[in-house]
Amino acid sequence: MTIRRLSVYTRCLLQLEEDGVKTISSEELAERFNLNSAQVRKDLAYFGEFGVRGTGYYVSGLKAELQKILGLDREWQVALVGYGNLGSALFHYKGFTRQGFRITVIFDADPQKAGRSVEGVPILSLRELSQEAKGRNLQIGIIAVPAESAQAVAERLVAAGVKAILNFAPARLKIPKDVRLQNVDLSIELETLSFYLAQATR
Amino acid sequence: MTIRRLSVYTRCLLQLEEDGVKTISSEELAERFNLNSAQVRKDLAYFGEFGVRGTGYYVSGLKAELQKILGLDREWQVALVGYGNLGSALFHYKGFTRQGFRITVIFDADPQKAGRSVEGVPILSLRELSQEAKGRNLQIGIIAVPAESAQAVAERLVAAGVKAILNFAPARLKIPKDVRLQNVDLSIELETLSFYLAQATR
Repeated sequence: MTIRRLSVYTRCLLQLEEDGVKTISSEELAERFNLNSAQVRKDLAYFGEFGVRGTGYYVSGLKAELQKILGLDREWQVALVGYGNLGSALFHYKGFTRQGFRITVIFDADPQKAGRSVEGVPILSLRELSQEAKGRNLQIGIIAVPAESAQAVAERLVAAGVKAILNFAPARLKIPKDVRLQNVDLSIELETLSFYLAQATR
Repeated sequence: MTIRRLSVYTRCLLQLEEDGVKTISSEELAERFNLNSAQVRKDLAYFGEFGVRGTGYYVSGLKAELQKILGLDREWQVALVGYGNLGSALFHYKGFTRQGFRITVIFDADPQKAGRSVEGVPILSLRELSQEAKGRNLQIGIIAVPAESAQAVAERLVAAGVKAILNFAPARLKIPKDVRLQNVDLSIELETLSFYLAQATR
């Protein structure tokens, strides 16, 4: 089962909990959130104890279990590197905080930006990354710098003890095997769409 | 083969072409871009004619073929809906233009923004979407509005004839089957990282 789908189910269950729903069947879950019901059943079969024959799943119990598996039962300290358009959008993205990801420090190469702070979070000079990152117990680094600086930033994050990197720069990064890398290339998402459009008009 | 990987190979080949490389073996390609060489060979076996025994692949020929498959041999007209932090970052994201995606119109609900233009691209009122979209031959819509407005925006885009939607709002959208939807949930990417971090510290 892909981890991505666990995230989707967690979101659906959170929504149901907010709406006061106590139990839900896989069919209702699929219908309500536009999911594949066979896939839902198969994926959630791992969590059998939260399913009750004839009733469905206990919303809160299943949600809490999925959150625990996804590491969302704790708070993660995140460093954001790059505070341009994209970095700023990511900093203000409400979804991160809601899921327990706290951006506690921002690094930027621009001396004009370093020294300022946004909503109480300091923007520090990129040069200080190695020293500044250390006392902060940072676990995750988000890279939102231009492609040509991304590899150097990744190396500094790794040197600072970061074990997981979310990379938005359109660059293939080389990092040690014990560091987890997740690349987000926004144009790849568009290319998946153009692939289907091109197929349809051929 | 996932379409996503075709996109990755295309990027690598573009880079090689810029560097003046004419042919490359699957091993070199894998090594240079940190890919899995067995996977590369398997994926590119579909494009056998661009592989030459003992030499590798013709960089330009393979790149052009992959671009054609991905629909990157033409220009796509894109509407961006929502010009907040994220919308602004997406508009300025250089990767889109480079791959042939042109944002030709922006829609925003804020009357303060509507009527302005950015880099020659008009920002129009969200209310005008249906009328304004029609003459523009828009093929792709990017949704960068808050979750609660996303479904309504999607419906307007569909009514305006858009056949592919890239959705950044953390909402599960319901759209007709003949419209292709690609969801980008930025916190899902972080959750994949926290999943691995949580596993490692358990």
